[in-house]
Amino acid sequence: MEAFLEEAGRRVDAALDSLLPPAQAEPRLLHEAVRYSVFAGGKRFRPALVLASAEACGLDPETVLPVACAVEAVHTYSLIHDDLPSMDNADWRRGWPTCHVRYGEAIAVLAGDALHDMAFEWILAAGDRLGPPERVLRVALDLATALGTGGMVGGQVLDLLAERGVVPAEWVPEIHRRKTGCLIRACARVGPLLSGREDELACLTAYGEHLGLAFQITDDVLDVVGEQEKLGKRTGSDQAASKVTFPRVFGLERAREMAREQAQAAVAAIAPLGPRGQLLAELARFVVERDR
Amino acid sequence: MEAFLEEAGRRVDAALDSLLPPAQAEPRLLHEAVRYSVFAGGKRFRPALVLASAEACGLDPETVLPVACAVEAVHTYSLIHDDLPSMDNADWRRGWPTCHVRYGEAIAVLAGDALHDMAFEWILAAGDRLGPPERVLRVALDLATALGTGGMVGGQVLDLLAERGVVPAEWVPEIHRRKTGCLIRACARVGPLLSGREDELACLTAYGEHLGLAFQITDDVLDVVGEQEKLGKRTGSDQAASKVTFPRVFGLERAREMAREQAQAAVAAIAPLGPRGQLLAELARFVVERDR
Repeated sequence: MEAFLEEAGRRVDAALDSLLPPAQAEPRLLHEAVRYSVFAGGKRFRPALVLASAEACGLDPETVLPVACAVEAVHTYSLIHDDLPSMDNADWRRGWPTCHVRYGEAIAVLAGDALHDMAFEWILAAGDRLGPPERVLRVALDLATALGTGGMVGGQVLDLLAERGVVPAEWVPEIHRRKTGCLIRACARVGPLLSGREDELACLTAYGEHLGLAFQITDDVLDVVGEQEKLGKRTGSDQAASKVTFPRVFGLERAREMAREQAQAAVAAIAPLGPRGQLLAELARFVVERDR
Repeated sequence: MEAFLEEAGRRVDAALDSLLPPAQAEPRLLHEAVRYSVFAGGKRFRPALVLASAEACGLDPETVLPVACAVEAVHTYSLIHDDLPSMDNADWRRGWPTCHVRYGEAIAVLAGDALHDMAFEWILAAGDRLGPPERVLRVALDLATALGTGGMVGGQVLDLLAERGVVPAEWVPEIHRRKTGCLIRACARVGPLLSGREDELACLTAYGEHLGLAFQITDDVLDVVGEQEKLGKRTGSDQAASKVTFPRVFGLERAREMAREQAQAAVAAIAPLGPRGQLLAELARFVVERDR
């Protein structure tokens, strides 16, 4: 699994480098800020999931690279905006100063906006190479829905409101479902949507939903017990910010157990894929065993 | 022209109302903020241009309403982010407190993000009703390109840098081309892109480019000589913020003349359309004669 993730990361990084505008193009400050945040040591988990979903559905992972890069672009956009002083006010991310600390708040907002936009540009511009236009449309729409007020943006708002005590802590599963889960679900659906294997959309959707929860609960757990060095950010930051998290609401041990249960449910969901689901199953197990 | 704009505004407002999530849906604060900014008295110039472009190419304007709404959504997103304290720090817009003044900075950033996303969702979800998938793809891609670092976001960065004296004032045409021009150009191209009249794409593109400049130069002029009440925002704000504008670089009289020249060039560009271009021609003349 480590080898697959490393190889996927290399391919995605190379594709990102060629898709992103060069740092020398005007406005250089913006392009520099975008590249700074994109190449700040992300795990590339989401794009790897896109590649694995494509492979499970018989597609050449090479062809879905624009979608994998788009997903990483929107993930980076969300981190840049979440880190802003008016939101999580984070000064440190993956071992580097956050975008607004390095480039100022205005450029950080706009770098996030630019990445948000590039995601759609890359998918829509890939056109025929990605698949028939009606399938490309569905993938782009799936992404837009995952990012919307019923998904990522809505989750971030609920997260902020929960921190302020306006939304009860018991909403934590719903907050995580929207904030992290919807995008991971969309990644898992890329294979069936682009290959036209509609009959496998339901099981990969269920897989993605369980995987998303497993991933986020593990993130919460690592914020409590993880090593700062490996994570590249301050641990305990959720607690300091009175974030609503699974460990806080359910206790650390129960949270760990819930992450494992979700990973098992993810693996069970793709049983119909048979051996084609092996990589995805390994990815689900890896997600709850990782230490960063 | 006033009657056309009023009627277009009514249709677009009704369509926006049905496309936007209800204010009662969670997270209510976000949906309220989004609706507050969208219904804060915009002129609906860009969506009206989309409808006019569609009509000029023989399409039923009713079918392109999702695109018209998408364009208004991204325009609103750009205003919300431009007004933020870290950017133009504007507290007043169209006669109302700006989004961040009313809802706080975090919600304003996220309301902008949500609208940015909805634009793509609406176009992509319209699907068949809008046209064949390959044409819908091109319209969505055209919008993404117009919003990107070579377009609106890049223009906003150059605008900020010019204000700080990092980019010379002589860049004002390039700044305006990106910041305002690219989106207006995209609006003008919706008709030929969706109708498949590829032979008319070049003349409507040229029309859109000239119209965008005419529109922005007039905006700059109105900031100097306009009436605060009609505009619904503080006049003289560009000067106070040492914004680079056409009147500042070229003088007020020459700027007025340039706006008229651009409007004439826009009208000339659509001569090949014959009588089908009448509404677009009137729109170009209106743009430089308006007082708000």
